[in-house]
Amino acid sequence: MLSFSQGDGEYIGELAEFVAIPSISRDASPETMRQAAEWLVARLGYAHGRLIETAGNPVVAAELAGPPDAPTILVYGHYDVQPTGDLLEWVTPPFQLTRDGEFVRGRGASDDKGPVYIVLQVAQAFASQEGAPPLNVKFLFEGEEEVGSPNLPAFLREHAESFAADLVVSADGAMWRPGEPSVSIASKGLVSLDIEVTGAGDDLHSGRYGGTVANPAHALAQLLASLHTEAGAVAVAGFYDGIPDLTPGRREEIAGVPFDDRAYSDQLGLEELHGEPGFSTLERLWERPTLEINGILAGGKYTVIPHRASGHVSCRLVPGQDPDAVLQAIAAHVAAQRTPGVRVLVRPDQARVPAYTISPDHPAVQAATAALESVYPGQAVILAKIGGTLPATVLFEEVLHAKTLFFSFSTSDERLHAPNEFLRIRRLREGMRAWEALWRLLGNGPHRLAPR
Amino acid sequence: MLSFSQGDGEYIGELAEFVAIPSISRDASPETMRQAAEWLVARLGYAHGRLIETAGNPVVAAELAGPPDAPTILVYGHYDVQPTGDLLEWVTPPFQLTRDGEFVRGRGASDDKGPVYIVLQVAQAFASQEGAPPLNVKFLFEGEEEVGSPNLPAFLREHAESFAADLVVSADGAMWRPGEPSVSIASKGLVSLDIEVTGAGDDLHSGRYGGTVANPAHALAQLLASLHTEAGAVAVAGFYDGIPDLTPGRREEIAGVPFDDRAYSDQLGLEELHGEPGFSTLERLWERPTLEINGILAGGKYTVIPHRASGHVSCRLVPGQDPDAVLQAIAAHVAAQRTPGVRVLVRPDQARVPAYTISPDHPAVQAATAALESVYPGQAVILAKIGGTLPATVLFEEVLHAKTLFFSFSTSDERLHAPNEFLRIRRLREGMRAWEALWRLLGNGPHRLAPR
Repeated sequence: MLSFSQGDGEYIGELAEFVAIPSISRDASPETMRQAAEWLVARLGYAHGRLIETAGNPVVAAELAGPPDAPTILVYGHYDVQPTGDLLEWVTPPFQLTRDGEFVRGRGASDDKGPVYIVLQVAQAFASQEGAPPLNVKFLFEGEEEVGSPNLPAFLREHAESFAADLVVSADGAMWRPGEPSVSIASKGLVSLDIEVTGAGDDLHSGRYGGTVANPAHALAQLLASLHTEAGAVAVAGFYDGIPDLTPGRREEIAGVPFDDRAYSDQLGLEELHGEPGFSTLERLWERPTLEINGILAGGKYTVIPHRASGHVSCRLVPGQDPDAVLQAIAAHVAAQRTPGVRVLVRPDQARVPAYTISPDHPAVQAATAALESVYPGQAVILAKIGGTLPATVLFEEVLHAKTLFFSFSTSDERLHAPNEFLRIRRLREGMRAWEALWRLLGNGPHRLAPR
Repeated sequence: MLSFSQGDGEYIGELAEFVAIPSISRDASPETMRQAAEWLVARLGYAHGRLIETAGNPVVAAELAGPPDAPTILVYGHYDVQPTGDLLEWVTPPFQLTRDGEFVRGRGASDDKGPVYIVLQVAQAFASQEGAPPLNVKFLFEGEEEVGSPNLPAFLREHAESFAADLVVSADGAMWRPGEPSVSIASKGLVSLDIEVTGAGDDLHSGRYGGTVANPAHALAQLLASLHTEAGAVAVAGFYDGIPDLTPGRREEIAGVPFDDRAYSDQLGLEELHGEPGFSTLERLWERPTLEINGILAGGKYTVIPHRASGHVSCRLVPGQDPDAVLQAIAAHVAAQRTPGVRVLVRPDQARVPAYTISPDHPAVQAATAALESVYPGQAVILAKIGGTLPATVLFEEVLHAKTLFFSFSTSDERLHAPNEFLRIRRLREGMRAWEALWRLLGNGPHRLAPR
């Protein structure tokens, strides 16, 4: 066993340095982004840590050689963070990592600087205490995850050889709950689009023109309402095409996961939950695709007939759904609605990410389960799914022909992307132990990864 | 006949002084508003022009005595204007009245400084050329019309006696079209409300929560869509209650008004018109109530489930409809919809204005028709209705027990409330002639107004 002998305070102090760099990829300066990347490079000196330029923010790369003939993993994470949101909502300054009881609070603490910091500690401990890790480890930390990784595909294709690995292990992708250890075996895909409805050339006075012309806001409301059945299923013909039936086995597995609808709705401030009929809450969350209206914008408070109304819609996809086919089905559905007197335009966004899965039988999942069992003895490890979308997984599969294991020690309740993001302090130490166990298991344990 | 001997340039120069004062009641300083009021007072010196304080911007009052036993009219108008909107859209500065061919352009030129200026010229001409007008004339110009006249009701009740009149003649309330002379015999009422739908305490990540909770933006779209039938009628039970059937006579009258659906839709940049089935475009505009969604606001562009969605709705009412009953009918309709998993709140706005009408047989309408026929010989005078709402008319009827005649020389196409508001120059001179004729006809002509 490695020795992780620093006190919590020391770990937190080091992580605080990383959090203090406001590397908000949506709007920070290139210098600030580079400063965060350099912080990682400096800590990866023993592993040939270096910056590699991309068309955007640089990638941090590093390698640590294991024993001969050992398999190779690629550790993925990101050094960029989300915008702070309303600063007034933060109870302590977002870039000043602050201990508060069992938690540390700060932007990036949970997504993804804390989880990345855990891996750095493990790598360094192997290097300094055992001379080398039990397998070959490559690192790729990007600086644009929170803005959709626009430059990662081109970068990875260009450097495919140097990042070749038998498995990607992601330090990103939160565990679903703090109470139980879990391994995520899927993430949902994503497509999104705008529906724009336009009428006259300008907003019209509702008295002077009311009753004579179609109102784009009405038409949009009708279009958006038509996307679901009254019961709550998606009403777009073809939307569910290609999705295999939920097997009785999986239904049973999910039914065995402790989940309290009442506690969940209470936590969200809701009186009742809602969704596609015929599925439990967890089934809907993990196994079923969704179509959500993310935003609507039309007119304002005054008595006008707005000349333009638009809605933003996104879908989370599950295995079996083809992103392009889903977009086409929605466009066809919208085109089939009757909207006299207005023009309707469906504008799909560029990104089309299919769902991602890794088989529960994959040695990586088995090793991860065993690693978690060693850190959380006596607790069942749950095979969870991520409702969110991690486009990098699809990219790694396509370019590196490697599956991705999610192995993050943040949890999805830690206010990721919101004000007052936090991380549970105990997860730092638990994470280090678990990563150590995972590397040993993948390198030379019973779940040894087969080198390609 | 009075002599209106100044050249157009001189009239425009004087009106330009009035337009130059940026009396935007929504956000100008009290000093600026008072400056506009003082401009009017100075021009009404011969008629005992004066400021009277209100809880907001002052009212300008004046009187001009006619012959003994003559009836009394109260001339109404306003010296405040709308905000400019986007300054970049103005082709010339909004407060610099600019001649451009047949038009003058500037904020307030049409609504309502130009029409008020016309009346001032007529009053002054009577006073200087004939010693007195042919009837008693009182003036009331307010400075808060564009913000809903919040202080006019209390003011008028307090000063009911000094503004007592047999008829109100409004210099506000645009004619419906520049091509034909018209007298407006009605204006629509107005009620408005917000529909607010709330879900969880915060916006939720559509991946991490999608499928488990109701989306307030969906629920709002469904509620808003439910307000109309697919064919375009209002679907709220009770909305049309109390409205008398359109008589064959009125239908025939309206059918006789030259109106080209194609030209109307072309002008608005529309491919087709739309509205309540069973009625012509003009019937819908003049005789039928409407329910419009003026604005929708929910979430934004990103992949969230918004926690709040709201829509602003307003209705233009026709005679027979009770504003309170309409609001109640909408609230009941919304409450009857199925919206599981969200909270729905209907929040009616304070203002509840019923529709206003003056009988076509009223001597004021007859006199106005005859006055217009004298200025536009050979042209049929159309009995039009105003789709907009003029709350002051209802107030004058309630407090002064006097009907209101709309007698404005602006037209509704003159970009009122929008950038590049303009007035047709010829209307200045036509308006003066028409007001002169109206006063003579009401004072001692065949349509002499009966003093109360």
